[in-house]
Amino acid sequence: MKALVYNGVGQKEWVEKPKPTIQSATDVIVRVTATTICGTDLHILKGDVPTIAPGTTLGHEGVGVVEEVGAGIRGFKPGDRVLIACITACGSCRNCRKGMHSHCLDGGGWQLGHLIDGTQAEYVRIPHGDFSLHRIPEGMDEEALVMLSDILPTGFEIGVLAGKVSPGDTVAIVGAGPVGMAALLTAGFYSPAKIIMVDMDKKRLSLARQFGATDAVDVSEGNAAEAIMAMTDGVGVDVAMEAVGIPKTFELCQDIIAPGGRIANIGVHGTKVDLALERLWIQNISISMGLVNTDTMQQLMRSVETGQIDPSALITHRFDLDEIVEAYEVFGNAAEEGALKVLLKAPAA
Amino acid sequence: MKALVYNGVGQKEWVEKPKPTIQSATDVIVRVTATTICGTDLHILKGDVPTIAPGTTLGHEGVGVVEEVGAGIRGFKPGDRVLIACITACGSCRNCRKGMHSHCLDGGGWQLGHLIDGTQAEYVRIPHGDFSLHRIPEGMDEEALVMLSDILPTGFEIGVLAGKVSPGDTVAIVGAGPVGMAALLTAGFYSPAKIIMVDMDKKRLSLARQFGATDAVDVSEGNAAEAIMAMTDGVGVDVAMEAVGIPKTFELCQDIIAPGGRIANIGVHGTKVDLALERLWIQNISISMGLVNTDTMQQLMRSVETGQIDPSALITHRFDLDEIVEAYEVFGNAAEEGALKVLLKAPAA
Repeated sequence: MKALVYNGVGQKEWVEKPKPTIQSATDVIVRVTATTICGTDLHILKGDVPTIAPGTTLGHEGVGVVEEVGAGIRGFKPGDRVLIACITACGSCRNCRKGMHSHCLDGGGWQLGHLIDGTQAEYVRIPHGDFSLHRIPEGMDEEALVMLSDILPTGFEIGVLAGKVSPGDTVAIVGAGPVGMAALLTAGFYSPAKIIMVDMDKKRLSLARQFGATDAVDVSEGNAAEAIMAMTDGVGVDVAMEAVGIPKTFELCQDIIAPGGRIANIGVHGTKVDLALERLWIQNISISMGLVNTDTMQQLMRSVETGQIDPSALITHRFDLDEIVEAYEVFGNAAEEGALKVLLKAPAA
Repeated sequence: MKALVYNGVGQKEWVEKPKPTIQSATDVIVRVTATTICGTDLHILKGDVPTIAPGTTLGHEGVGVVEEVGAGIRGFKPGDRVLIACITACGSCRNCRKGMHSHCLDGGGWQLGHLIDGTQAEYVRIPHGDFSLHRIPEGMDEEALVMLSDILPTGFEIGVLAGKVSPGDTVAIVGAGPVGMAALLTAGFYSPAKIIMVDMDKKRLSLARQFGATDAVDVSEGNAAEAIMAMTDGVGVDVAMEAVGIPKTFELCQDIIAPGGRIANIGVHGTKVDLALERLWIQNISISMGLVNTDTMQQLMRSVETGQIDPSALITHRFDLDEIVEAYEVFGNAAEEGALKVLLKAPAA
C-alpha cells in the first residue's frame, strides 16, 4: 500500500509500505477512505515532536471501512464504516476509568502518526479498536466526520468544556485556525452572549463571523488586549481560549481575563510561558490545559447528524489521497492559500 | 481607643485613635474581643502591598461584640457576639451574585486592614455588616473562631475546594504555615488517601503529622520533587497546593502534579512565575488561584461547633491586645519561636 512517511525533520515521502496486519486481538485494520492534515503534523515536520521515529506514517484523523478485526473485537466487523479517534485507548486502565483516555496506560493516548503508523495511508491499524473507532450512521456524510477525529473534540473538550462556557458569558478565542474554529462552532452549544475571535488573518476573521463570532479583533491592527478590554467595559472576558501555542497569545489571555474567569489553553506549546501570578493570584481565575480525550465523539456525531453544527464548512481544499504531498504544500502555506482544513479522499474501492 | 497603625514600610505603632463611627446605614461597629496577626500583615510591613495608606489600622481577623448598628442592619443588634470575615461584601452586586464576594463591586473585598481601618484595635467599623459578620452560637469558644476570619476559609476554599480534593486522592501541601495547616485540617473533610506536607521546618512538619498529614517531606533534606515522585510510584499527586507564595514552591507543584491533577495556588505572590507549558499542555491539569470569598464560614463554624475540626490547635502563643507589638515580634520570627498563630485578647469589658 501507499503511505505518507516521516523521514526525519523537514522530510516526508509518499512511499510503498507493507499493509498493516493484526498484531493484537483488540486491533482493527481500517481501509482509509478520507483523511486530513493537522497542524500537529507540521509541528512534527518542524522537529517539535522528538518522540516520533523516522519511518512512521503520519496522520491521526480519518474515516474508513473496516477491513479486518482481531479476535477480541466485539463492536465491529469487516465492511463497517468507521470514524477513527485520534486517541486510541483501552477504556479500562486507571486513567481511562477516570475519563482520561488521552493518558491511557495500556499503550494508548496519542499513538497514531506519532508512536505507531498513522492514517495518512491506504490502510491503518487501530489498536483498542472497540474504544477507538466509532460507527458511522447510515447515510451520514463522511467528509464532515473527518473533522471529528481530532479538531472538533479538541476545541470542544479542551476549549469549551474545560473553559466552562456558559449562557451569558463573554468568550475570547485567540487563534482562528482549525482548532480555534472548532472551539467557536462548539462554544455555540452553550449560548454565550459574545464570542470575540482574535487573529491576524482577515480572511479567517471574516470566516469566523460566518461561523458565529459576534466580534473580531485583528491583532495586526493595534493592541488587542486594549481593544478587548474596551469591548467588555473594562471587565475582561469570562473565558479566554488560547488556540495558537506561543507565549504571546497565552499572555494575551492573562491580560483580558475577568476576575473569576477561566483560561483554557488548547495550543501545543514548545516553550515555557510567564504566568503573572503577582497580579493573578488575587483574581480567582483558573487555567486548564490538556490533550483531547475524544469522550465527546458520540455527542458531536449526533450534533452533526442533526445539523446543529456543520464542521464540513472548515474544509477549504480537497485532494485525492495520492496528491498528499501537494496538499501538505497548500496546508503549510495556509494564510496565502486561504486554507483551513484540506481533505484527502481515497478513490472508491 | 487604641489601635495598631501602619506608618509606612517597616513601621507600625500602638497608638490612640478616634473610635470608629457609623458612616453608612449598613455599617456595624464591633468591640474587638480577640484578633490575630496574618502573614499578609507582615507582607504589608515589608512593602509588598502598596495599596495601603500610612495611618491605616492593620488586621482583618477577629471576633467581638456588636457595639452599634446602622439603620439598615437587619441581622444584628448591640450585644451580639460576632465573628468578622476578612472579606466585607454587599452580597448583591454582579460579582457577589456569582459567589465572588472577594471581588464585590460595592466597595467590598479585602478592605479591612488594607483600604479601611482593620481589626487590630479596640473597635472596628465593619461595612456591609449583614453579610460580613457571623453570629457566634451560644457557648461557643471564641478563640477557635478567630482562625475562621481568614485562614480556615482560605485553606478550604482556595486550597481544598478549588483543588477538588476527593476520596482516594494523593494531596501535597507545599508550605506548613498557618494557611497550609488550615488546608490540611479541611482537606480531611474529603478523605484523601494521602496528605504529604512539605516544608523546611521540622517542628511544623511534626505538628502537621499531628493534624493528619500521612507523610512529611523536609525540603532541606534533598530534592523534594524526587522524594514525592518516589512516594507516589512515579505518578505524582492528584492535588498540589501552593501555600508559600514564591516561584520555587509553585515550580515544585508543577514538578509533582500527576496527569489530570489540580494545582491550587493559595500563596500571595510578589513576582511572576515560570509555567512549564511545553510539558504541561498535554498533561490535562488545571491551575486555580484566588482570594477567599468566605462563603464557607457557616459550614466551617458548624464543623468547629461539632468538633469535626479544632482550629484552636493552630494557636501557639497568646497575648493581651496591648502587647501586640511584642506579638508581632514573635510572629515575625515564627520559625525561631515555634509560632503558628498568635492570639490577642482584649481585657473583659
